[in-house]
Amino acid sequence: MDDRELRTMRHLFFMEYYSGGNTGLFMKMKKLIYSYQSPYQRIDIFEHPDFGRVFTLDGIVMCTEADEFMYHEMLAHVPLFSHSGPERVLIIGGGDGGTLREVLKHESVTEVIVCEIDPYVIEAAKKYLPQTAFEFDNPKTTIVNENGADYIKQYKDYFDAIIVDSTDPTAGEGGYLFTKDFYRCCADALKTDGVFSAETEDPFYDKGWVAIAFNRISSVFANNAVYCGFMTTYPSGMWTYTFASKSRDPQRDFDTERAARMEKLFHYYNREIHRSAFALPTFVKELIGKA
Amino acid sequence: MDDRELRTMRHLFFMEYYSGGNTGLFMKMKKLIYSYQSPYQRIDIFEHPDFGRVFTLDGIVMCTEADEFMYHEMLAHVPLFSHSGPERVLIIGGGDGGTLREVLKHESVTEVIVCEIDPYVIEAAKKYLPQTAFEFDNPKTTIVNENGADYIKQYKDYFDAIIVDSTDPTAGEGGYLFTKDFYRCCADALKTDGVFSAETEDPFYDKGWVAIAFNRISSVFANNAVYCGFMTTYPSGMWTYTFASKSRDPQRDFDTERAARMEKLFHYYNREIHRSAFALPTFVKELIGKA
Repeated sequence: MDDRELRTMRHLFFMEYYSGGNTGLFMKMKKLIYSYQSPYQRIDIFEHPDFGRVFTLDGIVMCTEADEFMYHEMLAHVPLFSHSGPERVLIIGGGDGGTLREVLKHESVTEVIVCEIDPYVIEAAKKYLPQTAFEFDNPKTTIVNENGADYIKQYKDYFDAIIVDSTDPTAGEGGYLFTKDFYRCCADALKTDGVFSAETEDPFYDKGWVAIAFNRISSVFANNAVYCGFMTTYPSGMWTYTFASKSRDPQRDFDTERAARMEKLFHYYNREIHRSAFALPTFVKELIGKA
Repeated sequence: MDDRELRTMRHLFFMEYYSGGNTGLFMKMKKLIYSYQSPYQRIDIFEHPDFGRVFTLDGIVMCTEADEFMYHEMLAHVPLFSHSGPERVLIIGGGDGGTLREVLKHESVTEVIVCEIDPYVIEAAKKYLPQTAFEFDNPKTTIVNENGADYIKQYKDYFDAIIVDSTDPTAGEGGYLFTKDFYRCCADALKTDGVFSAETEDPFYDKGWVAIAFNRISSVFANNAVYCGFMTTYPSGMWTYTFASKSRDPQRDFDTERAARMEKLFHYYNREIHRSAFALPTFVKELIGKA
């Protein structure tokens, strides 16, 4: 780094506000790479001295190169290894490409639709986030720029897996993806033995949303369970995901042999993590009425 | 809150710097309650609008009333429930009293020594941190204001449990408590079936210390294992602890019946958490050479 870069780093900051701004994370910016107000949201990408590229929407960290693997692996592999051989997968949101990258590690997958409402996110990701966005041109991938809650309505009994990789319910267009109507449409679009996962916020700053999402999802799917994972640059570092299915159970139907074979491809997810992620701290159990 | 308080909250901030200051957590301060430079460290206690009282040493959050239970329960109960009936317990550090509070929930405990080097920390905790510091006057409690690494040398084959609730190795006097010599003294001071736990930092910002602490502890104790827990206001939200013992195993010797009986006393720890906390993400396994 030359002197000029060092001087810049001393005064350019990104700040994400948690809990209404009483707390938050700050990051120094080595360089602001991209800023754009799309019709849907404010997109920023910057270079952090330790985390590499950082991608934010409406001032909220979506991923950093240093830890995005934690989130994307937990969101994708817990449902996908609860299925014996997923072929058709729908990702709702996921414009940075990280979930797509993880899904395509499963050789059984023949078709992935990424329904990302905002084409500017995908365009920016392809240009500036090569670590996550390199599978958009894979022949198995189809990109659709539509509202996921509308798009899904045309499908019945079609997908083996649906993964909701949304922004926060209070940011951008994320709110549509936290409604009971949307979850019902997901259930309809899934095959009987299909699997579903959604990011469902953190249970410390956003405890209300964890409970709302779980209650709505569990009112639609017979099998459902919240699981947790570490996600170091998300609020509180503690992230919840909700698994759901009409017939599959993430423990009983866990494909341990396939997981064992593929484990070397992952940096966070492994068989013990799959089994233990459903063990919830007592305060999280209380939050979702399972204590 | 009156207008004057609101105005204060707009401009008083606490900032903790992670990874050399390139990232960090900020918190608004409703009121700065106590600041003192003791011979060992800078002590600050402030009121946060959401987290209640926040206690920091050398600018590093030690605990907030909103989430200290996560850390104190995981540090204390994983080793204590790996023992069938701990009586004599030594806490090294732990001046806020949170670990002491958890230890005294175990009815078998007859004696707890809190070896906290800095009397000013205990004095401030007793005055300003009533949520954690209310057991210092318990007749089972003895407070010793000495360097833990020196103090422990007089004991041989005495304790059922030693819990190292230290500051960071780079802050205050925490460094002494991360040496192999100290861990060796802990092993000597423990009975053959005694149990040990230590906070061993976060594996994202402080990955070097996780590896160092685990390697040193595991070179001294036959049985050893890193476990993880969420700790929302600590760096990265992901905290590691290291369990160790000369003979006990945290799964084989887990006293599930006692844990079941006491579970209602806890907000984080429960039987599933005990069993699953030892399942480590792959990158943590790699860090400690267990991948």
